[in-house]
Amino acid sequence: MNRLNRHETALLQSIHKLKEKSGAHSPSVHELIHKKVSIDIQIDACFLSNPYATDLFLSYFQHDLLSDLSRLRRYLENYPSQNRFIAEMLSGYLQMPANNIFVGNGSSELIQAALHYFTRDKMIVILPTFSSYYEFVQDGVEVIFYRLDKQKDFELDPEVLIDLAKREKPNTVVLINPNNPNGGYLTYEQVGRLLHALSRIQGLENIILDESFIHFSYEDPSLSFQSASSMFNDFRARLIIIKSMSKDFGVAGIRAGYAIMDQRKIDLLLKTGYLWNISGLAQYFFELFTEDAFLKAYKQVRVRYIQETQAFFKILGTIDGIKTYPSLANFALIELLGGLKADEFFARMLLDFGVYTRNCDDKIGLDGEFIRVASRKKHENDAVIRAIQTFLRNRQS
Amino acid sequence: MNRLNRHETALLQSIHKLKEKSGAHSPSVHELIHKKVSIDIQIDACFLSNPYATDLFLSYFQHDLLSDLSRLRRYLENYPSQNRFIAEMLSGYLQMPANNIFVGNGSSELIQAALHYFTRDKMIVILPTFSSYYEFVQDGVEVIFYRLDKQKDFELDPEVLIDLAKREKPNTVVLINPNNPNGGYLTYEQVGRLLHALSRIQGLENIILDESFIHFSYEDPSLSFQSASSMFNDFRARLIIIKSMSKDFGVAGIRAGYAIMDQRKIDLLLKTGYLWNISGLAQYFFELFTEDAFLKAYKQVRVRYIQETQAFFKILGTIDGIKTYPSLANFALIELLGGLKADEFFARMLLDFGVYTRNCDDKIGLDGEFIRVASRKKHENDAVIRAIQTFLRNRQS
Repeated sequence: MNRLNRHETALLQSIHKLKEKSGAHSPSVHELIHKKVSIDIQIDACFLSNPYATDLFLSYFQHDLLSDLSRLRRYLENYPSQNRFIAEMLSGYLQMPANNIFVGNGSSELIQAALHYFTRDKMIVILPTFSSYYEFVQDGVEVIFYRLDKQKDFELDPEVLIDLAKREKPNTVVLINPNNPNGGYLTYEQVGRLLHALSRIQGLENIILDESFIHFSYEDPSLSFQSASSMFNDFRARLIIIKSMSKDFGVAGIRAGYAIMDQRKIDLLLKTGYLWNISGLAQYFFELFTEDAFLKAYKQVRVRYIQETQAFFKILGTIDGIKTYPSLANFALIELLGGLKADEFFARMLLDFGVYTRNCDDKIGLDGEFIRVASRKKHENDAVIRAIQTFLRNRQS
Repeated sequence: MNRLNRHETALLQSIHKLKEKSGAHSPSVHELIHKKVSIDIQIDACFLSNPYATDLFLSYFQHDLLSDLSRLRRYLENYPSQNRFIAEMLSGYLQMPANNIFVGNGSSELIQAALHYFTRDKMIVILPTFSSYYEFVQDGVEVIFYRLDKQKDFELDPEVLIDLAKREKPNTVVLINPNNPNGGYLTYEQVGRLLHALSRIQGLENIILDESFIHFSYEDPSLSFQSASSMFNDFRARLIIIKSMSKDFGVAGIRAGYAIMDQRKIDLLLKTGYLWNISGLAQYFFELFTEDAFLKAYKQVRVRYIQETQAFFKILGTIDGIKTYPSLANFALIELLGGLKADEFFARMLLDFGVYTRNCDDKIGLDGEFIRVASRKKHENDAVIRAIQTFLRNRQS
């Protein structure tokens, strides 16, 4: 690695310290600013969200609330509506009875709820994965990993998973579709077959299907996405679909998510709390989410973002010296080849180009040197490509 | 009761239905608006918050965020800081090590966390109380009630509580100071003696002290409040102080609260979740909360509100036909005398005067007909007094 100067070393150390404190999550740009880590981040390629959707949300926010301060006050001053009210509001749009909708303070609250109140004994998790799925389990739950094979591009083999589940007889299986951090995608049909097979395994009580990135996926030229929620009825006793609104709608700060699950499970959760678990602004977001005009505009920014994202990944795929894995999410997992270390790549991208990437050295289940790069706005994606190309060229010379 | 017309009956029924759906909580004005219950609520005397503090918060919000949309965007778009970061930020102001501060998505999340992760076997709760304290307990926990005596103005007798705890050997004791819904207050010295005595009872692992209304109390003419957090060190193994920011700062929609507890307890909670459990706006609130200028301005609206509140309660105490119980919170518990029913009082206040009060007919531990009235802005309090006086006068004639 080009020698780091003292200032650069200190900066990287502060980021490293912040990362350790954050568990297995990169400190947000927010945190870096707050902790006065004086790094000039030009592009936050760590952050998994559609920035065009944030623009859209903010334009509604400005129009609805900044021009009507008494309405804004109502959302900030009053208790928000309870879970059941929001569920009823969402019911029409999600084409799901309100009794099967549970609203959460971001998907992390939903993950925690599912793992703590429903999961016991044994759980199967696919690796690599979003770390909360094994970090939040309660003591006494054994976690069995199904490691995706790098040689097979981290593609999930439904048969292998089914065999593993038959053998291990877990209480819970966790699937993320598209998967984080590699972006691998199971088709609607594959998910259906998988749910069907898993449902027949005795003792399997929960199939947690995290669709937080499903809005970035598609199966045909219309680019529409296929949520498993339309199959919910067939698997209602076991299926728990978890959905963050942070990624596709670009509103992580608002903390909004929902889960679809059996009414008995929801009743159990509501019996033990989750009283006013979303904020007034999350309520405002969910109100927007049921507004036709907003959804129509959202559809456009969704399609635009997918097109730009896939074009970005395509170019990444042509760059020598790195391998970009197939992704139908809004991030790409990149393997560094030829002895290049993730630490070096991360440091130089940040220090020389102001590009903040996700160093995956703490992700279990990845054997090699990996970086995850999020798709941002087009001019930012272009700049990330130029940065990677320049860095690799300089390194060779 | 004056006969209700069909329209009035229908309105009351919708409110009643909403209330049933909300558990033992009055539907918020927000919910009534959303459900299109067309009642003209002039004064929300159900809502327990300092409206002057809301004004103050909104003026900062406008100044800081509405004039700087990129800053606003940062709070809405990005993941908020994690629990530890906010705790460090609060540490100085609370004069408490960050390791003993746990940040929550409103106090209801903190209550749920304490009851689910720490409480087992047996718990003592004072009656009447905030219903979540017995509603959220997990199956298998026996709840023992210490019923406050109406004849003694619902005053808590520390000796009775200590004897009960010695006899019952609970795992957890819950105290709310000032208590909800009556506003009864234990002095700093009484709390100290109580904590001292309870700490010596074998098997008692948790003393939950909810100080969500402490900012409305005072012990001397300076009107400053006395939080038990300054005694935390002496009782750290057992004491859990829970603090909502919704009431004193008037920001219920933001969902912000914190708890002070032993580091081992916090470690256990963080190990099992609570990753990004507060929103970007709650983070903004906590940032304000550590700003000298904001706190100085807050102190003024706090004192003003207390003075107006106590003057309000004093006048309520002089009205014939009702009995107002002593309160150092921002609400007063009112007993209706002479055969007057809470249902009738609630209905007529709402329908004839637009005053929305808390009908306490669902509160266990209250023997009689009770209404809870919150203190609002001075002109609203004045209007509530006029409404009660007019109603009682008309009723007698």
